[in-house]
Amino acid sequence: MPDAAVSTTGTATTPTFDDVTKARERLAGVAHRTPVMTSRYVDSLVGGQLFFKCENLQRAGAFKFRGAYNAIASLTPDQRRRGVAAYSSGNHAQAIALAASLQDTPAVILMPEDSPAVKLAATRSYGAEVVTYDRYAQDREVLGAELAGKRGLTLIPPFDHEAVIAGQGTAAAELFEETGPLDLLLVCLGGGGLLAGSSLSAAALSPDCRVVGVEPEAGDDGRQSLEAGRIVTIPVPRTIADGAQTTHLGALTFPIIRRHVERIVTVGDADLLAAMRIFFERMKIVVEPTGCLSLAAALSEAVDCRGQRVGVIVSGGNVDMARAAALLAG
Amino acid sequence: MPDAAVSTTGTATTPTFDDVTKARERLAGVAHRTPVMTSRYVDSLVGGQLFFKCENLQRAGAFKFRGAYNAIASLTPDQRRRGVAAYSSGNHAQAIALAASLQDTPAVILMPEDSPAVKLAATRSYGAEVVTYDRYAQDREVLGAELAGKRGLTLIPPFDHEAVIAGQGTAAAELFEETGPLDLLLVCLGGGGLLAGSSLSAAALSPDCRVVGVEPEAGDDGRQSLEAGRIVTIPVPRTIADGAQTTHLGALTFPIIRRHVERIVTVGDADLLAAMRIFFERMKIVVEPTGCLSLAAALSEAVDCRGQRVGVIVSGGNVDMARAAALLAG
Repeated sequence: MPDAAVSTTGTATTPTFDDVTKARERLAGVAHRTPVMTSRYVDSLVGGQLFFKCENLQRAGAFKFRGAYNAIASLTPDQRRRGVAAYSSGNHAQAIALAASLQDTPAVILMPEDSPAVKLAATRSYGAEVVTYDRYAQDREVLGAELAGKRGLTLIPPFDHEAVIAGQGTAAAELFEETGPLDLLLVCLGGGGLLAGSSLSAAALSPDCRVVGVEPEAGDDGRQSLEAGRIVTIPVPRTIADGAQTTHLGALTFPIIRRHVERIVTVGDADLLAAMRIFFERMKIVVEPTGCLSLAAALSEAVDCRGQRVGVIVSGGNVDMARAAALLAG
Repeated sequence: MPDAAVSTTGTATTPTFDDVTKARERLAGVAHRTPVMTSRYVDSLVGGQLFFKCENLQRAGAFKFRGAYNAIASLTPDQRRRGVAAYSSGNHAQAIALAASLQDTPAVILMPEDSPAVKLAATRSYGAEVVTYDRYAQDREVLGAELAGKRGLTLIPPFDHEAVIAGQGTAAAELFEETGPLDLLLVCLGGGGLLAGSSLSAAALSPDCRVVGVEPEAGDDGRQSLEAGRIVTIPVPRTIADGAQTTHLGALTFPIIRRHVERIVTVGDADLLAAMRIFFERMKIVVEPTGCLSLAAALSEAVDCRGQRVGVIVSGGNVDMARAAALLAG
């Protein structure tokens, strides 16, 4: 009866900052404590002081490792033995693959067939089985549930999961620990796991800090949802920020975001490329388009950083050189 | 009588580890203490444990800032007031420009007209005056001396200078302080300032550590010089490692290298590109071709890292995206 073992959201409890603290204990010595970088050049552009939390330097190249590891560590021994499944536009897949391998858990990953080559290859290199699908024609949530049911796996969703949200919140917790209170925290969002988790940490550790979410112009479902006061679903957005090609916030992430996030702003793909170039040429770090959302917002008129101490979550660095070159040439 | 104020090598004394220690004091709070990164992926490729000292994340994007700042800090107040001049394939220029600006010293920089655009722009952005020349037709040492003489400036040479060598040695000193003794240290070389300085630190802090220099195949004057027991001069080498397009070691650097460096190995441009791609895609950092020399050597058959704890000095990250894209497409 494998179906009986399937859980798509773990517990459906809304996580709190206590869960973030527990996640930090589970991640200690496993996740990297990523560096906080600064750039005099960027500070001079925006007129404020920016602190970049470099999750592009996290294991598997993105913050997603935090939530994935925490979620698998929260399973029962029997669930871990049977294995986990995940659907993902890329970074969650790699994160689950690595986190599962570190905890001796089999992993099956459902990935869009047009995922960046580096992400497909890295997921397989961590020992996971990859199953591909057409992101414009097939519903990954249905496919994921089918796959998990058929094989008795526990599905770890990419954002709408208590332990995932709590794990993602640990990056901002580390940031505040290092910088002290901030005036503003900029966090990208797709499904809102990182934004929800970060906002829990901000509310606990820097209560006066305004938290602003950043999403691509083409995929502004988060902004629409905050304005409408309910989860708005959009078609799959076409943007270079492939980590933010989600169609809606989650049942768990939305209420947290509504409570703790001041507003959600959007930036265009051209702004992402400009930010990517600054990361590359001035800060000498590789940041994928989705990871450029928060800096792009800081550089835009949507956010005023003048005189502010601003945390910038840099979510990931998984872009191969060929794609980076094509993006910047195009 | 501006000519009387000109000094091309400061004192011509050979620096010792004491000078490195003094340089560290001058650089404290001014130069970044750059991170030491590791990569499980690279370790698995070479069968050893590599510690990357990331001078691509240094101010002005390269280790050169250390020597430049130390050299200017060692001048008399009157020399600093008159100003400094430098010739450089790029990173030394930016370093002198920034170090001069931080010490309220005017700077005039002589740069090859085919320097990467990002380097020319950055040098000017630090407030220096840039004078360009043809590196294949004109002798920069003669031009530099003329320029300095005409304007009463102190010429700070890129490598053959006591305070420059001592400053460059501080990166390896920080590395050993963080890692403890190492079995092997890989350092790129052009004129040998970084290699000489690093070898002084190795001899003092990790006396059993073998120091190996790495230079481009097309510009193996260092290897030839060690074999011949005298400084061998070659034509300007054509290599993508533009920071190593020097034609000979220095009168100060050569004796130090001869005493403390076990051997010098070479790598080809294709090896540099492979290393650059690993830095980009796996370690998420931007490293210029010259900065890839030491990792390329670790990955090649020229150096056996199996079972060894290996320090890898990553010298700089000043490559613009357009050039990086062109290099990797070509």
